[in-house]
Amino acid sequence: MAVRTIEVRERVMARNDELAAGVRERLARAGVPAFNLISSPGAGKTALLEASARLLAGLKLGAISGDLATDNDARRLQRAGIPSRTITTGQACHLDAEMIHHSLHGFPWDGLDVLFIENVGNLVCPAIYDLGQEANVVALSLTEGEDKPLKYPVMFQRADLVLLTKADLLPHLDVEVSRITDSLARVIPDPQVILLSAHTGQGLDRWRVWLEARRASVAAVSHRHASHP
Amino acid sequence: MAVRTIEVRERVMARNDELAAGVRERLARAGVPAFNLISSPGAGKTALLEASARLLAGLKLGAISGDLATDNDARRLQRAGIPSRTITTGQACHLDAEMIHHSLHGFPWDGLDVLFIENVGNLVCPAIYDLGQEANVVALSLTEGEDKPLKYPVMFQRADLVLLTKADLLPHLDVEVSRITDSLARVIPDPQVILLSAHTGQGLDRWRVWLEARRASVAAVSHRHASHP
Repeated sequence: MAVRTIEVRERVMARNDELAAGVRERLARAGVPAFNLISSPGAGKTALLEASARLLAGLKLGAISGDLATDNDARRLQRAGIPSRTITTGQACHLDAEMIHHSLHGFPWDGLDVLFIENVGNLVCPAIYDLGQEANVVALSLTEGEDKPLKYPVMFQRADLVLLTKADLLPHLDVEVSRITDSLARVIPDPQVILLSAHTGQGLDRWRVWLEARRASVAAVSHRHASHP
Repeated sequence: MAVRTIEVRERVMARNDELAAGVRERLARAGVPAFNLISSPGAGKTALLEASARLLAGLKLGAISGDLATDNDARRLQRAGIPSRTITTGQACHLDAEMIHHSLHGFPWDGLDVLFIENVGNLVCPAIYDLGQEANVVALSLTEGEDKPLKYPVMFQRADLVLLTKADLLPHLDVEVSRITDSLARVIPDPQVILLSAHTGQGLDRWRVWLEARRASVAAVSHRHASHP
């Protein structure tokens, strides 16, 4: 029984990695960096993207939002000026590469400067599914406490950037940011961390700089591809 | 491929339900009610149990805490005076009945007045796994926003009680409690809700009353079993 389950899981993962490689290749050729946003439910991914729409007003942004049951996030992003579509996952606890592959059909992603993928709110399952993203951005709300990197290590080990969100609440919490970064340093050697608040704007400049640097490196690779086909 | 995965999942679920029935039977005979606490990461399950230890000082409490990688929660509960053990789930995103079955071995649960099961922090996967509990208690932090019941409907449909935690933060949030209860009422017909704060003590009396009522009904059934074996 257990062996059968593991066999099936390995085949699912191999198929996922194959599809993710295809998605990554297509996005890279078009010079579109995709950022996979992952967090617990309610850590502020959508609020961050709403703020990012204002912050990156000169760029063409797009988003794919995963949700078990609603299209609330995609509708919020549309209202903020980010063309968005929803992937309704039902009981599936994460996005996978096949969902992204299908979602790109008919979505005008190839003219975008940045594609955000807003994963299902879950600090466990999304960690192991490659979606073809340029980078994983994990949002951790300060309200979640200081030890989450130790308790959900796989997720944080796969993070290229950790955003500590809801910084505006810090004065009201029994939490020290240094203890969160200490926890992070115990699971990843050199964590990149930005403390921010979509509410007050704190830290959003650093988020913009990080995004633009990642975008520039993707655009440079895409340009070299185009010059030497 | 998909069919094979579903077949395996159905067999896993059938086996889980069988083991959960066994756990429920053993707990019922001993008159020990088990409460399955479920929430997003960092919604305050452990803080609530720490507060409950003070609140229910006359009762013998015990806890089983699920965690991917640490025993932080069980150690916190031990310090609060609640005998506890950890189930380390590794990459598993939820507890299952087999884990509870094994965890009860060698744990002096049969003298307890209440057994708390603190699930892995996850609003998706734990929803469908019966653990042999008397009731599911879902903790939703006010910091997570107003639409979570709509976005994670399966979890809230299985909730016997919803605790709205971190009530002390309400003045600092752009959140209305009535909007959360409206969302809840759209997924369950008659939601039982308690607004509370482990920090200030708000609402803890109602939580105690609810627990004692559920405990009394289990004890009554257990007593009838004992009288008419």
